[in-house]
Amino acid sequence: MLRARDGSATISSRQLGDALGLTDAQVRKDLAHFGQFGQPGVGYRCIDLLERLRTIMGVDRPWPCVLVGAGNIGRALLAYRPFVHGGFEIKAVFERSRELVGTTIAGRKVRPIEDLARGVAAVNAEIGIVAVPAEAAPAIAAMLVGVRIRGILNFTPCRLDVPPSIPVRNVDVSVALEQLAFDISSMAAPDES
Amino acid sequence: MLRARDGSATISSRQLGDALGLTDAQVRKDLAHFGQFGQPGVGYRCIDLLERLRTIMGVDRPWPCVLVGAGNIGRALLAYRPFVHGGFEIKAVFERSRELVGTTIAGRKVRPIEDLARGVAAVNAEIGIVAVPAEAAPAIAAMLVGVRIRGILNFTPCRLDVPPSIPVRNVDVSVALEQLAFDISSMAAPDES
Repeated sequence: MLRARDGSATISSRQLGDALGLTDAQVRKDLAHFGQFGQPGVGYRCIDLLERLRTIMGVDRPWPCVLVGAGNIGRALLAYRPFVHGGFEIKAVFERSRELVGTTIAGRKVRPIEDLARGVAAVNAEIGIVAVPAEAAPAIAAMLVGVRIRGILNFTPCRLDVPPSIPVRNVDVSVALEQLAFDISSMAAPDES
Repeated sequence: MLRARDGSATISSRQLGDALGLTDAQVRKDLAHFGQFGQPGVGYRCIDLLERLRTIMGVDRPWPCVLVGAGNIGRALLAYRPFVHGGFEIKAVFERSRELVGTTIAGRKVRPIEDLARGVAAVNAEIGIVAVPAEAAPAIAAMLVGVRIRGILNFTPCRLDVPPSIPVRNVDVSVALEQLAFDISSMAAPDES
């Protein structure tokens, strides 16, 4: 893995391409899409490039999140360190189960789902994380849309039907496993491709 | 969502394309890559198509898996129903922590990591699921390679360095969140694209 902390002051499009599995021309073209980057013959200054990329990606500022669902996935997220370090912070946790409401997980008190609107407003949450059983996901998505969340991270296998102005990203274990099964099957029969 | 169980006997490339966000020509071209499919003017027989797709994807048979790491992500996986239904079954669970070894989670006894080689052989495991802290991931990946696992599903943010004959799929919450932040930022500033 390439790391800015390895100490080089600059990096070339060829080095970036090698690390990313792209040609140097593609790297230059992709970056040019976002404006003027780097200098011919010199490359990109690492610090500038990182800062520009963070701005382009929108990760140069905090993203307050709310989590709906305090089951196993929710607990894993609350304990997930890289998550917190990336500017994404779970500010409040909501749950339907009466057994979980009122308990404290990783320092956050679990609140009843009925508090969602108030909770989202109180912490200015922009991202809603859906970690509920699949059958509950459509109703939770509708609630999040209703309280003007800006984007949704969906851990359920259910595809959420929300307005196009609200982006959804799915983290789908089933799909990843099926891709892996396909990869392995392809390895086993290289002559059939 | 399109479902075979909705009752239609056949489906056209146009219907498939609409459901997938592709053109009908692209659907025909993609399927043709795997051989002869469907009939001009008639479409594809749903049952045949599903069966062929399951065979192509390699999900027409069971895939015995072993799980390394019985923390929150591991527990979520053990409780994850769609996972079990897709032919992927976690046959054994391994863990380094002495506090967890010997406990039973969702009906599976947690075994010491030292038993990995024996455990993989005993259940003919083909897929290894890595759900350990990131810093432990390289060593676990090396162990899985050593016991001739065929593919790895990696839940850590660490990129695993394994031989190219062993496919790895990453389920990466950090990446999904960053993509979501980018999506939301792009929504907010449509004129800047």
